Amino acid sequence: MTSTLYTPTRVTLGQGAEDNLGNELRAFGARKVLMHYGSERIIRNGLMKKLTDQLDKEGIDYVLLGGVKPNPRLSLIREGIDLCRKEGIDFIVAAGGGSVIDSAKAIAYGLYDKDGDVWDFYTGARKPQGSYPIGVVLTLSATGSEMSDSSVITNEDGDLKRGCNSDWCRPRFALLNPELTYSVPPYQTSCGTADMMMHTLERYFHSGASLEFTNNLSFALLRTVAKYGRIALENPEDYEARKNLMWASSLSHNNLMAMGHDQRGDWACHQIEHELSGMFDVAHGAGLTAIWGTWARHVCHVDRERFIALGENVFGTKRTGNDEADAEAAIVAFEEYFRSINMPTSIEELGVNLTPEQIEELADKAVFHGKRTLGAFMTLHKDDIKAIYEGAAKRK
Amino acid sequence: MTSTLYTPTRVTLGQGAEDNLGNELRAFGARKVLMHYGSERIIRNGLMKKLTDQLDKEGIDYVLLGGVKPNPRLSLIREGIDLCRKEGIDFIVAAGGGSVIDSAKAIAYGLYDKDGDVWDFYTGARKPQGSYPIGVVLTLSATGSEMSDSSVITNEDGDLKRGCNSDWCRPRFALLNPELTYSVPPYQTSCGTADMMMHTLERYFHSGASLEFTNNLSFALLRTVAKYGRIALENPEDYEARKNLMWASSLSHNNLMAMGHDQRGDWACHQIEHELSGMFDVAHGAGLTAIWGTWARHVCHVDRERFIALGENVFGTKRTGNDEADAEAAIVAFEEYFRSINMPTSIEELGVNLTPEQIEELADKAVFHGKRTLGAFMTLHKDDIKAIYEGAAKRK
Repeated sequence: MTSTLYTPTRVTLGQGAEDNLGNELRAFGARKVLMHYGSERIIRNGLMKKLTDQLDKEGIDYVLLGGVKPNPRLSLIREGIDLCRKEGIDFIVAAGGGSVIDSAKAIAYGLYDKDGDVWDFYTGARKPQGSYPIGVVLTLSATGSEMSDSSVITNEDGDLKRGCNSDWCRPRFALLNPELTYSVPPYQTSCGTADMMMHTLERYFHSGASLEFTNNLSFALLRTVAKYGRIALENPEDYEARKNLMWASSLSHNNLMAMGHDQRGDWACHQIEHELSGMFDVAHGAGLTAIWGTWARHVCHVDRERFIALGENVFGTKRTGNDEADAEAAIVAFEEYFRSINMPTSIEELGVNLTPEQIEELADKAVFHGKRTLGAFMTLHKDDIKAIYEGAAKRK
Repeated sequence: MTSTLYTPTRVTLGQGAEDNLGNELRAFGARKVLMHYGSERIIRNGLMKKLTDQLDKEGIDYVLLGGVKPNPRLSLIREGIDLCRKEGIDFIVAAGGGSVIDSAKAIAYGLYDKDGDVWDFYTGARKPQGSYPIGVVLTLSATGSEMSDSSVITNEDGDLKRGCNSDWCRPRFALLNPELTYSVPPYQTSCGTADMMMHTLERYFHSGASLEFTNNLSFALLRTVAKYGRIALENPEDYEARKNLMWASSLSHNNLMAMGHDQRGDWACHQIEHELSGMFDVAHGAGLTAIWGTWARHVCHVDRERFIALGENVFGTKRTGNDEADAEAAIVAFEEYFRSINMPTSIEELGVNLTPEQIEELADKAVFHGKRTLGAFMTLHKDDIKAIYEGAAKRK
């Protein structure tokens, strides 16, 4: 049993990090760049000009492609691939958050691939054999896509949301200026905080024995994110808070927090949330916190000590010697924290009132109509998943 | 002020990690490999055969070059460069600890360079413009060279020990099987533990404000290393201990523990020890612990809180509100720990009894005869350094 860490992304963190774009692109020998982004805000606030001025200075040509939305769309990705082919693009820069990065990764896969449709990589029909290089100017701390091997996109034809993981898509560089996240709205700040915590928790709740060093690093990450998530909510322009969160976003999803563990992690909460956000328009981080406590109570009998140590090291909960009570106290501490940053701890708080029929359908889709189970800390069958949707439906 | 992390090394950690050598070399397209190593022990214990069997299976040719000693010698490096040129080597594998890796890095620089002598890169006369690729099969947890940008070698002509840092020499892969460190003798295990702790402390005591997240990660590393360093000493074949230490060795020196800080770190203790091990034959880790407490007392007035937080988070020392006493308690906790793993806290315990003339000479060499100062947490002039050698000379 071995575990692997591969993080080739050169990360620059701090004020003015984005001023290194020209240097990075020159170092990679880029000649014509796709500047990929989401809303027009980064045009209006001058960030895009700051970036393209560097390209002009380096004599690097570029083409703009904006319009990436949360849950990045396959149609825009296909448009991006065609544009890149036509323009002779050799490097892709994602200026934005996780959706823009994931869209850029998909374009980079498609551009490299000469044999068919990029969607194949997301259905699992084919595996990527390479990718064009991408770089990131990050404007949102949340998904960790700036260092991860993961890309999640949505095919509007059937509203299918699918992910593709491979080392090919790991960005070559990531420029992290915390100031660029000052304008992230409170709700998105909290969703990002929740997302980082959940990326770490999904790896902490793997099956089997843990490496204590990795647990200690994970506790350090969770403590830091919990503290600064709240501070950033109170004061969006707190530089220290934004800096701690920005770096934690990268380390929460680059696999550092799975070294020495069974690296498959658990990921049941992600998949349970996935179905929910497929059926309803739910923000990912909020969907995760809405479910987590119910999932935790459903599975904690497997290894209560894992929960007790978590509560103790992240929120300072005290041991009484009663394992059931101590594990419950750890779960409550997390739920209280989520509520303190205005994240939901039930599905109804997402504005979704599930009917029994919907619960049946969600659980059935989650297990691919009986073709798979979820989770690894505890293996979840359809009945388990139904029980979790039911338990999470209303706030207790 | 930005900080950068660049860790392109693909790390595989766990039992049997070394069985991935053939796969890794195939992935990099290696055709003829230099297998570089230290003592003949790895021939006798069968490790080398286990490695070369994989190369045979992949149809990859290879040449052996052993004999690397602690403080790797320039003469062997030159011999290695000539051998690689003659044999048409395109990849270098270092099978061993820090000395073997550093020697391999120097050969890789020299092999790439067509313009002169490899020693130029270590005197600073020229900067490396590239390097042949290297990979690592690690057999000793200590220096962190398996992920670092650093290489330190010794020129026998004048007994000059010099380092060269550049991203070019970062290994492409590192295979970390904790079982391969079971045979490391107790004294070397303790020296390795000390080395990892000091690599982290040198970055913790940078000048200026710290990133709390990085401090929290550093505390997690120091706590883990302190715990498992002692366990590995008591039971050399404790797998969990060796695994925690092995991974900590990599993370203590790849710059993760400097993100968000002034990345120049402090490094005064390293340079003070450097002169000592230049004049006397002193193990690096032991030389560092012999000096650290005296250095700490000399500088702690600059920012006692940094020491208090360190003691509190690593060894659980309690605050009394008296900053002087609390900082002293933190320093004592570290010294007591070093003694508990049989590391010295004075120079006499290294078997070295310094004369006033030797102290004068060491301090003068440390500041390059007045041409530089040491340290960043506190800038040290020659008189400071003399005071530290004097204070550290005898055990209190």
